[in-house]
Amino acid sequence: MTNSVTEKSLGRLSVVKRKFFTFNELILENGETLGPITIAYETYGQLNSYRSNAVLVHHALSGDAHAAGYYEGEKDPGWWDSMIGPGKAFDTNEYFVICSNVLGGCKGSTGPSSINPKSGKPYALDFPLITIGDIVNCQKRLIDYLGIEQLLTVVGGSMGGMQALSWLVNYPERIRSAIPIATTAKHSPQQIAFNEAGRLAIMADPNWNFGNYYESKPPAKGLAVARMIGHITYMSDVSMAEKFGRQKKWASQGEKFTADFEVEGYLRYRGDNFVKRFDANTYLYITKAMDHFDGFDGKSAQEAFQHVKAKVMVIAFKSDWLYPAYQSQEIVRACKIADLGISYCEIESTYGHDAFLLEIEEESHLIRHFLKKVFYDYEVIDGYSI
Amino acid sequence: MTNSVTEKSLGRLSVVKRKFFTFNELILENGETLGPITIAYETYGQLNSYRSNAVLVHHALSGDAHAAGYYEGEKDPGWWDSMIGPGKAFDTNEYFVICSNVLGGCKGSTGPSSINPKSGKPYALDFPLITIGDIVNCQKRLIDYLGIEQLLTVVGGSMGGMQALSWLVNYPERIRSAIPIATTAKHSPQQIAFNEAGRLAIMADPNWNFGNYYESKPPAKGLAVARMIGHITYMSDVSMAEKFGRQKKWASQGEKFTADFEVEGYLRYRGDNFVKRFDANTYLYITKAMDHFDGFDGKSAQEAFQHVKAKVMVIAFKSDWLYPAYQSQEIVRACKIADLGISYCEIESTYGHDAFLLEIEEESHLIRHFLKKVFYDYEVIDGYSI
Repeated sequence: MTNSVTEKSLGRLSVVKRKFFTFNELILENGETLGPITIAYETYGQLNSYRSNAVLVHHALSGDAHAAGYYEGEKDPGWWDSMIGPGKAFDTNEYFVICSNVLGGCKGSTGPSSINPKSGKPYALDFPLITIGDIVNCQKRLIDYLGIEQLLTVVGGSMGGMQALSWLVNYPERIRSAIPIATTAKHSPQQIAFNEAGRLAIMADPNWNFGNYYESKPPAKGLAVARMIGHITYMSDVSMAEKFGRQKKWASQGEKFTADFEVEGYLRYRGDNFVKRFDANTYLYITKAMDHFDGFDGKSAQEAFQHVKAKVMVIAFKSDWLYPAYQSQEIVRACKIADLGISYCEIESTYGHDAFLLEIEEESHLIRHFLKKVFYDYEVIDGYSI
Repeated sequence: MTNSVTEKSLGRLSVVKRKFFTFNELILENGETLGPITIAYETYGQLNSYRSNAVLVHHALSGDAHAAGYYEGEKDPGWWDSMIGPGKAFDTNEYFVICSNVLGGCKGSTGPSSINPKSGKPYALDFPLITIGDIVNCQKRLIDYLGIEQLLTVVGGSMGGMQALSWLVNYPERIRSAIPIATTAKHSPQQIAFNEAGRLAIMADPNWNFGNYYESKPPAKGLAVARMIGHITYMSDVSMAEKFGRQKKWASQGEKFTADFEVEGYLRYRGDNFVKRFDANTYLYITKAMDHFDGFDGKSAQEAFQHVKAKVMVIAFKSDWLYPAYQSQEIVRACKIADLGISYCEIESTYGHDAFLLEIEEESHLIRHFLKKVFYDYEVIDGYSI
């Protein structure tokens, strides 16, 4: 293409494709066996000959494997495209970036909407309750399959950060660093409560039908309400005030309980849009996995981190009230107690929890620097030069 | 009764009764005429011969006229009983306390569940959209009817505080003081958003049926979700952590998406309980009235308060993130600009927005002192002694 050079200098990835990896079965943390399991994933950049430049990116609740680049013919890039690509924080000229859809998801990986081989129908609620640990165990299988002995880093925001923490505790020898962003080692009752309100909104919708809606209409209204609740918690009081103020949407003469204010119209739009691309049962399973997540598995920091040699960088955002900075500081404290190499950055931002998707400049600066350091230290130790 | 003396020394009111006041019609702020209108109210204590000791208490979203004392045969007292009674903050040995159910309510005052005289059926969505100003105009009719020229104070928390502000701006000559607690002069987009999520949860319930459910089943599941969302915002992250932690409710072996955590069980219980006592359409009408409330009617502070001579005490709570202290400070700033006698108290509390119902000791101390001062100043000016 004539404009490929320009595109490269703009930091655009070329067209990307979703790939699939299937394995026979996994014994879940609750003892049940699930299989076969398919994991949808994408990769960006090239794995180097030492296989030492692989970065595993974890997505959040509503994300998927499409972290960067553009699908053929689509206008919108992946959800973290501003961070992944040539010259970006995760520079695809340097690093090999992998992102996979979580187990339990609805974007290509096995989840409640997948066909249950035993029945020939979608699992629905026959899908077992899964954990963040199960999600990470699937990712580990993928990394094995890709022939990567050790990841340069594992990184993610929100639920993605939980996965990064889980890698740190469960596969310490397989990672050289971890970057948990805007996350927590375990949900507070407030975080559980918001998820529960969303789940009950879904289950209150008669179309939910105890999870059996794949051959009829999905619980669109319930899922839209769940998404709205989520959206409110992802923004901050200040960012909402700046974005919407008390701007009226339209005169609601005659019509009652329409969206009078801009903020209402926005939330309705985002809610309705979400149901086109997301499975309600996945919402239930994944939020439950988040609520039950305990990053240190009830152990002390020393015990949980006893085999960890990875460097850790924790990033939090000042206006994030869903995953407040004190929760990140708890992770930092645990790392310090266990004598890990840890750095902590609390970024000034008014974006609330969404900041991990929006504060690109600051985040890029921190991550670029951190990754170089981890990568470089390694090369020196092993006697290679970059 | 033999134990009446003991009861009095314990600060218990004797048995109270709900009363009703009906008037022909009211021209609403939107120009429509509504009538006849019934207002349910209760009174505690005695109006003195100068009619100078009357306190009007305003309830919040889910409250009603039953602010204090016990109904015959009932175990639970009114919603602010800890503040109203012999020897309490609103000492019924000194003051005559009035509380009425708001217009649009479902506890005895005319609202969407009342019979529309034109159809002989409940209004449902034929009930007009009402405002905080309309609610206050009904209260003013009640005060006229009770023969009270001037109220010693108007007081309330949350939506009750909005009504106190509305009295201040619209009937400055009829009040000697106002005590807006944990409130705001206008909702932020975040506050509107939480209300909108609750409204959509109600309207998503097919039993809602565009408001026509009075002859069938009410939208119980939708209303329960709305109430749950509300409850989360009434507590604080800290108070939830203290009350529930990550305590598990029961082992959910086999059953999926039950209430695993204590906090989930509590919210489900509170949600289900609410639907027994509250009308979903009232929830829609009242939250819309709150969202559209603009305490200064778009005027400058000087203009809005130009005829106000009342003393004002504004109370906020540090952990209240639904009605954050900065919103109370905005009211204080407006009062100062308009040169009103204003005092501001920000109470240390971990209870969040619920603090106005729970921080009784501190609140009582402030209010008792403030009321005495207002009452005493008045008596001196008019040459009476208390």
